[in-house]
Amino acid sequence: MARRPTKSRPEAQNPVRRVTAKAADGDDTFVTALKLADAELTPAMRAYFDKCTEKLGFVPNVLKAYAFDMPKLEAFVAMYNDLMLAPSGLTKLEREMIAVAVSSHNRCYYCLTAHGAAVRSLADDPVLGELMVMNYRAARLDRRQRAMLDFAVKLTAEPWGIEESDRKPVREAGFSDRDIWDIAAVAGFFNMSNRIASATDMRPNSIYHGQKRG
Amino acid sequence: MARRPTKSRPEAQNPVRRVTAKAADGDDTFVTALKLADAELTPAMRAYFDKCTEKLGFVPNVLKAYAFDMPKLEAFVAMYNDLMLAPSGLTKLEREMIAVAVSSHNRCYYCLTAHGAAVRSLADDPVLGELMVMNYRAARLDRRQRAMLDFAVKLTAEPWGIEESDRKPVREAGFSDRDIWDIAAVAGFFNMSNRIASATDMRPNSIYHGQKRG
Amino acid sequence: MARRPTKSRPEAQNPVRRVTAKAADGDDTFVTALKLADAELTPAMRAYFDKCTEKLGFVPNVLKAYAFDMPKLEAFVAMYNDLMLAPSGLTKLEREMIAVAVSSHNRCYYCLTAHGAAVRSLADDPVLGELMVMNYRAARLDRRQRAMLDFAVKLTAEPWGIEESDRKPVREAGFSDRDIWDIAAVAGFFNMSNRIASATDMRPNSIYHGQKRG
Amino acid sequence: MARRPTKSRPEAQNPVRRVTAKAADGDDTFVTALKLADAELTPAMRAYFDKCTEKLGFVPNVLKAYAFDMPKLEAFVAMYNDLMLAPSGLTKLEREMIAVAVSSHNRCYYCLTAHGAAVRSLADDPVLGELMVMNYRAARLDRRQRAMLDFAVKLTAEPWGIEESDRKPVREAGFSDRDIWDIAAVAGFFNMSNRIASATDMRPNSIYHGQKRG
Amino acid sequence: MARRPTKSRPEAQNPVRRVTAKAADGDDTFVTALKLADAELTPAMRAYFDKCTEKLGFVPNVLKAYAFDMPKLEAFVAMYNDLMLAPSGLTKLEREMIAVAVSSHNRCYYCLTAHGAAVRSLADDPVLGELMVMNYRAARLDRRQRAMLDFAVKLTAEPWGIEESDRKPVREAGFSDRDIWDIAAVAGFFNMSNRIASATDMRPNSIYHGQKRG
Amino acid sequence: MARRPTKSRPEAQNPVRRVTAKAADGDDTFVTALKLADAELTPAMRAYFDKCTEKLGFVPNVLKAYAFDMPKLEAFVAMYNDLMLAPSGLTKLEREMIAVAVSSHNRCYYCLTAHGAAVRSLADDPVLGELMVMNYRAARLDRRQRAMLDFAVKLTAEPWGIEESDRKPVREAGFSDRDIWDIAAVAGFFNMSNRIASATDMRPNSIYHGQKRG
Repeated sequence: MARRPTKSRPEAQNPVRRVTAKAADGDDTFVTALKLADAELTPAMRAYFDKCTEKLGFVPNVLKAYAFDMPKLEAFVAMYNDLMLAPSGLTKLEREMIAVAVSSHNRCYYCLTAHGAAVRSLADDPVLGELMVMNYRAARLDRRQRAMLDFAVKLTAEPWGIEESDRKPVREAGFSDRDIWDIAAVAGFFNMSNRIASATDMRPNSIYHGQKRG
Repeated sequence: MARRPTKSRPEAQNPVRRVTAKAADGDDTFVTALKLADAELTPAMRAYFDKCTEKLGFVPNVLKAYAFDMPKLEAFVAMYNDLMLAPSGLTKLEREMIAVAVSSHNRCYYCLTAHGAAVRSLADDPVLGELMVMNYRAARLDRRQRAMLDFAVKLTAEPWGIEESDRKPVREAGFSDRDIWDIAAVAGFFNMSNRIASATDMRPNSIYHGQKRG
Repeated sequence: MARRPTKSRPEAQNPVRRVTAKAADGDDTFVTALKLADAELTPAMRAYFDKCTEKLGFVPNVLKAYAFDMPKLEAFVAMYNDLMLAPSGLTKLEREMIAVAVSSHNRCYYCLTAHGAAVRSLADDPVLGELMVMNYRAARLDRRQRAMLDFAVKLTAEPWGIEESDRKPVREAGFSDRDIWDIAAVAGFFNMSNRIASATDMRPNSIYHGQKRG
Repeated sequence: MARRPTKSRPEAQNPVRRVTAKAADGDDTFVTALKLADAELTPAMRAYFDKCTEKLGFVPNVLKAYAFDMPKLEAFVAMYNDLMLAPSGLTKLEREMIAVAVSSHNRCYYCLTAHGAAVRSLADDPVLGELMVMNYRAARLDRRQRAMLDFAVKLTAEPWGIEESDRKPVREAGFSDRDIWDIAAVAGFFNMSNRIASATDMRPNSIYHGQKRG
Repeated sequence: MARRPTKSRPEAQNPVRRVTAKAADGDDTFVTALKLADAELTPAMRAYFDKCTEKLGFVPNVLKAYAFDMPKLEAFVAMYNDLMLAPSGLTKLEREMIAVAVSSHNRCYYCLTAHGAAVRSLADDPVLGELMVMNYRAARLDRRQRAMLDFAVKLTAEPWGIEESDRKPVREAGFSDRDIWDIAAVAGFFNMSNRIASATDMRPNSIYHGQKRG
Repeated sequence: MARRPTKSRPEAQNPVRRVTAKAADGDDTFVTALKLADAELTPAMRAYFDKCTEKLGFVPNVLKAYAFDMPKLEAFVAMYNDLMLAPSGLTKLEREMIAVAVSSHNRCYYCLTAHGAAVRSLADDPVLGELMVMNYRAARLDRRQRAMLDFAVKLTAEPWGIEESDRKPVREAGFSDRDIWDIAAVAGFFNMSNRIASATDMRPNSIYHGQKRG
């Protein structure tokens, strides 16, 4: 939602230099294509935004996008934090890898940008995030992580076709029933978020683009 | 998760009567294919389950499926209730129609069964739920509801292709920016839930099948 | 073809109650979107319609749809009755299961409604029809019926990819060459009927919806 | 069904000349991959086969494929002759063009071969059949025939998406409601036949390949 | 590019004979839908065109299409001749089989026509070209050629999914690493050429249609 | 082709740190999965490699991949340089944007990495490359560049469906017939290159990943 909407980018007038402005221009002020007025943050959400600013240096745009309605924001934050940060048989990096592989299938600009940066950072590996963004099959993953991503991506592409025969290689790669739930829940969550971001033209904070590149 | 797992159905031994048992057998004891021990319900969730039993006569299996972990159950319930029951420019029926049209695209047995019953009930129309399950394009909807479902289903099938030109007919059918958020959020939520249900072979309470049929 | 065409349903005028009429309204008078005058029934077809009325209580709309031309009606009835009712290594229920699984892939409202009711009835199992309509992979079928439906649905979705390696598991599940013909012929027939129904917006008799639900 | 089954083609032993036999070898003796014994032809079918031999010089393999069962053969012949030869607002050539465009979508070797030859012959145009086989969109058709094929091919590829908005351009190109039925019925019939041919590995009489090439 | 553009074919005025002209009319004068003036042939390209005329009796239209720019024509000819004619572990026929199977997936009228004729000619088998055009899976190929085409067609349809597990059956069918490169390079080249032909509505010389039919 | 093949990455032995090595490890020594011995560079190719080293600081791996055979390397270089560097109505940036949008559809790790860096560099805009990699529809392009990429991507995804109606918006956005050729030729070229890279598991020089990120 464009709280302080930037001017819509005019058609280029200069044929020599058609991309007249940087592609990310306005990414930090334009949040979504929906004009929704900010609600007043509840104390819990105010504290959460402050914590983001303190730890990350900024409030992720997805949180600003939900900030028109406190129950929605709080439900999103509760689910997100449980899935991505709470104890699990999956490492935080693995959960972010699922997030990016799913978002790659769905070609979601917001999530690929924000969570691609997270993979680069958590793995301390500037290339792994690129591989998740571009084609996870090209990454040289161990059997465990490959089975995890194959399950998450098939669940994304053809949920109607998932059966015990799909869970079997995941189990055989060492994942417990609880782990399978977590893989499914993270994959499911990003199938939700990708769609909310695409439906609203949500734009990522531009700072993500340069993070952990070298 | 199969707390009291039924015997796995044996290969039919009698060629004359191959479907040896009713298809829904065990649907009320078999919840998912994952063996996860129930956690102790928090007071809030205990009250919520009791309310379900009181109002519906049963606890929906999806809640039992999440009951291995209270933070996950509470986050799911908070998000579900906000999306499907809180005030919105969409009627409760419209939100259930989106739920079923999305679940039809994803061919999710759990969600089609549970939310198909909800559409039949809220519309007081035993056929409308069938149409949402089978092919929403065959329903004789007014322009508003058709635009709403076209957006929700394209968002489900090709989220990468959604642009302002897709939001335009939704706006022109009378939906506000907030309504567009709600359509996207409900469609997104069922894209998540369909995948968790498919990943875990979640089975609906068998009572849904007969509800509001005549 | 709408012999006694109902008024086309107007855009809802009342925003509070948008679905102004029941979804099945007119299903029993509106047969297809094509205006084709009834031909005079031949004695054989007259007798057949009478038999339908006697045994079912109604004439299925698909027969009314073909009744503009006696050679077409007779050819359809001859092929249908041979495929679905004549002796075969497939039970009548199995043939109806193929009909519904194919129609589910093609999302055909007419055939899912009419033949979903047939599965519920022949199986004396109100849920099995729902499973065929929603996603046959979720049904707990024995190996024979699963092999049969996998073949029929692949033949529906990707006929160009069928080879001996697809017939092999069908043979191994106990089907003879003649049975394979019958599976293919039933699957093929519904691929035809689904398309004629979709092309003409054929509507099922509304009575099917409530049959064998409990 | 291979009545006089040819020896299965051995793996090539000569690396220099790997395709050791002509591709059509055995096409006139190998009919399908199913071993089904011929039934005795009824007098009507005997007369029909004789008429084929007299007029075409051969009995089309599809008829031999059905000849294991007289009711099936007779139902097929009745429907085929009504659709393709009886009076209609569509010319016989147009019906064959639909047959080939549908079979091209489904990549059916039998039907493309037999009906491609029919288009070449009826149009007295050796190239038109090739265009229908390869990509009907590349043919320079008038608006009528293009609308007809666009409808038939969408009906083949996405029957679930056909609505009045798809019938509209067909109507506007001059087709009556009866013509629309006929387009749908021919497209539907070949969606059936393509699948029976693919399911059984049906092979066309080799004589078709050279017909009307110059 | 239509150097001597034929009159655009008028809408048929005679309903009885709607295809008023042969489908290939103008194929030899209409080369593409783009109007691009011929450049002067370099001596090397002049010699090459002369050689085509001498050996084939005509200059293939694809060469005329590139003749608006000598560097583009020369680069195309150099790459084409290296791939299709230079020494390789693949026979010339095998390279043409890949060309046609790829072009069939992409439904490219130009390439199917020109290279379908090449397969018929090199194999001295009028049917093999038809099989490659229609559905290579229906051809009775030895294991080597089947593995080769399966790899080429998957590479065409889903390049993102190719992994070592796809190269393995190709290696096991006897192909060397250099052969795998050549399969990929020919498949890649026709994925390029198919798109240039489709983008420009390139038309084949009509003489191809009748070549090596009997 | 792995001239100095790195040890194949072993399955991770340490469950705590599963990604035991950086994802790009070996990218600069491992070029493709095919073992092909380098040929001796011709003087022209030696000079070209030296020029790459001088201007870029390295020889792009795609050139090393082709270096097993000089005619193939020279044909590739000639076509590449003509398409991407020679005068054209398309700017070099526009040609690189097509390269990346096509490679994104095909999810080609090599081309997305190498040409994503080129877009970032030529546009002097670190975000534009990311948008081309992730989903070009999310970029705020002017009408000209959007029409160009829509044509290139449809040509990539469904070449069989391209007709004059697809060229029309490209023409209306100001592109000449020659420009349309160039769009098609660049899109076609990367459809070829993506497949050669995917078929051979070609890996990009790791230096690309960090280029022009801030």
